[in-house]
Amino acid sequence: MSKLYLVGVGPGEPEFITLYAKRVLEEADVVAYPVKNSGEKSAALEIIKGTVNIKEAAELEFSMSPHLSKREGSRQSAAQKLIEILKDGKTAAMITLGDAGVYSTCGYVRDAVRVAGFEIETVPGIPSFTAAADAAGINLCEGNERMAVVPGIRGRDDLERLTAAFDTVVIMKAAAHMDIIYETLAEKGLLESAFAAKELYMPGGGIFPVTPEKSGYFTTVIIKKHG
Amino acid sequence: MSKLYLVGVGPGEPEFITLYAKRVLEEADVVAYPVKNSGEKSAALEIIKGTVNIKEAAELEFSMSPHLSKREGSRQSAAQKLIEILKDGKTAAMITLGDAGVYSTCGYVRDAVRVAGFEIETVPGIPSFTAAADAAGINLCEGNERMAVVPGIRGRDDLERLTAAFDTVVIMKAAAHMDIIYETLAEKGLLESAFAAKELYMPGGGIFPVTPEKSGYFTTVIIKKHG
Repeated sequence: MSKLYLVGVGPGEPEFITLYAKRVLEEADVVAYPVKNSGEKSAALEIIKGTVNIKEAAELEFSMSPHLSKREGSRQSAAQKLIEILKDGKTAAMITLGDAGVYSTCGYVRDAVRVAGFEIETVPGIPSFTAAADAAGINLCEGNERMAVVPGIRGRDDLERLTAAFDTVVIMKAAAHMDIIYETLAEKGLLESAFAAKELYMPGGGIFPVTPEKSGYFTTVIIKKHG
Repeated sequence: MSKLYLVGVGPGEPEFITLYAKRVLEEADVVAYPVKNSGEKSAALEIIKGTVNIKEAAELEFSMSPHLSKREGSRQSAAQKLIEILKDGKTAAMITLGDAGVYSTCGYVRDAVRVAGFEIETVPGIPSFTAAADAAGINLCEGNERMAVVPGIRGRDDLERLTAAFDTVVIMKAAAHMDIIYETLAEKGLLESAFAAKELYMPGGGIFPVTPEKSGYFTTVIIKKHG
């Protein structure tokens, strides 16, 4: 029966995939993996290749072009490719880093496949930001604490407001804002309460202090005020 | 070698445990499980009993008494019980629903065990709120969207401010506030953009519309404005 599974494969450590995700991927007729440019290695595919035995793989290109029309065109092509697989009566499983509902490429194809009339099931994965807190050995949130999760900040005032109103602030895609984040946290005396997860569970990655230098794409800063 | 693992076993579906969590639990000398009252069934232990073969189980009581001193006393006793296991040179794995860093009982013992000088490793689990969004088939957050995660609300004004400032609002432990949540969302025209995950992956549980009746302990409301 045609069905699309959107499968989170976790933050990068192969054993952080769930038993269910492994089973779904091994039973699927086609495993579709996202890349930024055709022919490139897929981070999601690299994670599962040692632990999951798949039948067939299909590449989905999600352009990171600065031109919106090019990005949207590639998303439509990817959705169409999945729909063609489903029209053949096959099950398809699209893999993504972390969880498919949290800032994932799966978001770009979900609606198109649903509108085309096919069943979709989302298979949970370990989100990168909870894995980062676990790797740092902190309680991300506890008791009455409140958490904000944002994909980047809109300037110094924005970060000040967030840290004033929330016990925990998670800044995903923080790479380009490390200078402002560092300066704001230093001024507020919050550097000791913060850390950066950079390319966590990828080569050379890990948990680091917050510093002002620009960093790699997979950078998440977590500020835990009462940590 | 003595070591404490804090292991998230996910939201309730046995196959939502990771390969790594399964391995850690099967290798641990003792698996410690939380209960509210001694002798009760442990939800976390129920999740793993069909898929994980453990060597030995130990109960940890975390009182839900209205008296803080009783709650804190039981937390200290639980930490001491873990420390005794570790002093015997054993590895212990404490299990918890969801992820050990997200509003979990593990938060109550982490510091005491660390201060006692033992190594601690947190093993990620699928958090209940991302699993709830996955079960509902929505993108919890995408693109430039921002998310707030709160353990209950502080009244109508609080919820209005949260929904004004964030694209996605996750209200955990929402059970006691369903009337205010329902009324506020109805007034703001947001009922269609919200759902309640009640006892998800537990008997009789699932994804439901938001209604004003008080509900069970494991109730999470998710509001996704542009869903």
